Amino acid sequence: MRTRAAVALEAGKPLEIMDVNLEGPKAGEVLVEIKATGLCHTDDFTLSGADPEGLFPAILGHEGAGVVLEVGEGVTSVKPGDHVIPLYTPECRECEYCLNPKTNLCQAIRSTQGRGLMPDGTSRFSMLDGTPILHYMGCSTFSNHTVLPEIAVAKIHPDAPFDKVCYIGCGVTTGIGAVINTAKVEIGSRAIVFGLGGIGLNVIQGLRMAGADQIVGVDLNPDKAVMAKRFGMTDFVNPTEVEGDLVAYLVDLTKGGADYTFDATGNVQVMRAALESAHKGWGESIIIGVAPAGAEISTRPFQLVTGRSWRGTAFGGARGRTDVPKIVDWYMEGKIEIDPMITHTMPLEDINKGFELMHSGESIRSVVIY
Amino acid sequence: MRTRAAVALEAGKPLEIMDVNLEGPKAGEVLVEIKATGLCHTDDFTLSGADPEGLFPAILGHEGAGVVLEVGEGVTSVKPGDHVIPLYTPECRECEYCLNPKTNLCQAIRSTQGRGLMPDGTSRFSMLDGTPILHYMGCSTFSNHTVLPEIAVAKIHPDAPFDKVCYIGCGVTTGIGAVINTAKVEIGSRAIVFGLGGIGLNVIQGLRMAGADQIVGVDLNPDKAVMAKRFGMTDFVNPTEVEGDLVAYLVDLTKGGADYTFDATGNVQVMRAALESAHKGWGESIIIGVAPAGAEISTRPFQLVTGRSWRGTAFGGARGRTDVPKIVDWYMEGKIEIDPMITHTMPLEDINKGFELMHSGESIRSVVIY
Ligand SMILES: [Zn+2]
Ligand SMILES: [Zn+2]
Ligand SMILES: [Zn+2]
Ligand SMILES: [Zn+2]
Repeated sequence: MRTRAAVALEAGKPLEIMDVNLEGPKAGEVLVEIKATGLCHTDDFTLSGADPEGLFPAILGHEGAGVVLEVGEGVTSVKPGDHVIPLYTPECRECEYCLNPKTNLCQAIRSTQGRGLMPDGTSRFSMLDGTPILHYMGCSTFSNHTVLPEIAVAKIHPDAPFDKVCYIGCGVTTGIGAVINTAKVEIGSRAIVFGLGGIGLNVIQGLRMAGADQIVGVDLNPDKAVMAKRFGMTDFVNPTEVEGDLVAYLVDLTKGGADYTFDATGNVQVMRAALESAHKGWGESIIIGVAPAGAEISTRPFQLVTGRSWRGTAFGGARGRTDVPKIVDWYMEGKIEIDPMITHTMPLEDINKGFELMHSGESIRSVVIY
Repeated sequence: MRTRAAVALEAGKPLEIMDVNLEGPKAGEVLVEIKATGLCHTDDFTLSGADPEGLFPAILGHEGAGVVLEVGEGVTSVKPGDHVIPLYTPECRECEYCLNPKTNLCQAIRSTQGRGLMPDGTSRFSMLDGTPILHYMGCSTFSNHTVLPEIAVAKIHPDAPFDKVCYIGCGVTTGIGAVINTAKVEIGSRAIVFGLGGIGLNVIQGLRMAGADQIVGVDLNPDKAVMAKRFGMTDFVNPTEVEGDLVAYLVDLTKGGADYTFDATGNVQVMRAALESAHKGWGESIIIGVAPAGAEISTRPFQLVTGRSWRGTAFGGARGRTDVPKIVDWYMEGKIEIDPMITHTMPLEDINKGFELMHSGESIRSVVIY
């Protein structure tokens, strides 16, 4: 079939909107009509050329929601008409990782996915002249139609609005999951969130849901405080307004350090501050942000020997097929909010404007509606 | 009273054996006759002058065992005649830290202990001319008699041999506790231990007790392998004999990385290798060794985001009054071994020879018997 897609032809160039060929689903695969997709910093990171593992030409996008149109041989968990969210972290429920309760990093299709291919080692996308186009993070939601492995789709509530719950495909789950699955924050905890962008806001609402008593937000931009308060932030700290050492200030503000700290900036200096503002004896610091290639974190080992721990999270520690439908339900039940974070929507033709809004800091999330 | 002690008069000088004055126990304190004391690297670190927090003159030593001779007002948990091990990490059972199950770092007497003083802000030791001598780590086991806060003594089995179980006052508990309390290693785990000195050997026997399937020991000195095998090591790796990258070699040897890795070297480069040889998705790396002042650990945050965690341990995460008596019982029941690690014993007069044996690498543990 033919479909309409925004294609990343090469690094550092705007996406090009064009018709592309899409082969139907093979065994174990499903064809999904994408109804909406968010624009995530990771797409931008790859498009910019800064991602050393970025491959081109490719169809980016990994934060979508849509409807199953057709299923390949042997597919049993979804059927045409089901509403789904594509999963860049699949859940096969059979590999060594899926069977270990400590991780969500299913490895079933990792090597082909990393090379922009379906599990059989080929791509379903091509240019009209036949040139293959690579998949991206196993999703390629910047195409109106895409093909996904069955293990990489989560079946969701049929009434969930695509243009909102698409955000659960990455940002919402990453932020809320970091709190719930990775940190396992307890009621009454004190927490600090570094970076109040889309991920940070979701960490904050995860903390509110987990019953945290104190939720400190840290950002250089004071305009971010308004939305963060709405999502549950109790204290705002602008590092440029702190006299003296930021870590000492935060330790004091949280009565000895936070039980949990979260880095949602990707800045390795901030990651260090996040670790060191965790409470002696038991504080945990969770890295969510993606750092530039080659950047390293560092600290004195004394920080760990005195009881802090340094951890990280990918896709919020969520097992997609199991956890994503629950988060969609939470949205439907009003337990979490998404609507105020979707600040801009646009048709696929204007997708490059969405990235401009991201760069200028005007948007929290832009969503393309097909 | 007068007692005999090895006094650290200043940094970098040998200890001087002399008679000193010791005041009796005040309220909440106990007078203990030390029967035996181990010589630990931490004593040596302080004596060398490398410890920025080292204070002089002081009576070092923190790995002892002895008998209660007298108790101060209000002391109820021990009485004269009880056999005890002094605790450099006390357990008050009342402070915010003691009441938090995630930590063992009781803070009840931390500030005075750090300044070489008893909880009332004074020292019980003095020279015969009246010059005060500081306590050390709240223990000062290099004196035949010492005064300790009640919360800093663990009452132990009355038949336990002092010249063996004194080692439980630091090294044994640190190593075994890192496995049991901090890492909480599960049956069937794979583990790597970096550094096969006294701490490393105790990590190894802790792993054996916890039911680990694979226990890899890493040390530059092949002579260490014999004793380590006796304590449960299943694989020995000498980094100088590995062609190519050590981390890649260890990841391969442990079928994808170890579930738990332990640094018992204090070398920050080794700490990095320990983290990076932990298994993707769930591997935990525990820092036990004390690094030189100012040294920093570093890694790419990707190591954490892909599921490894970096932690540390002090006194093996043990709550001394609760856990040390249990470890003594394990020794009495034959569940753990100590005797082969006590390679040298000597009278107090020869204590400086004990430090020479430590420097030359001839000893695993030297014990002074009073
Ligand atoms: Zn994303
Ligand atoms: Zn799997
Ligand atoms: Zn305490
Ligand atoms: Zn020690």
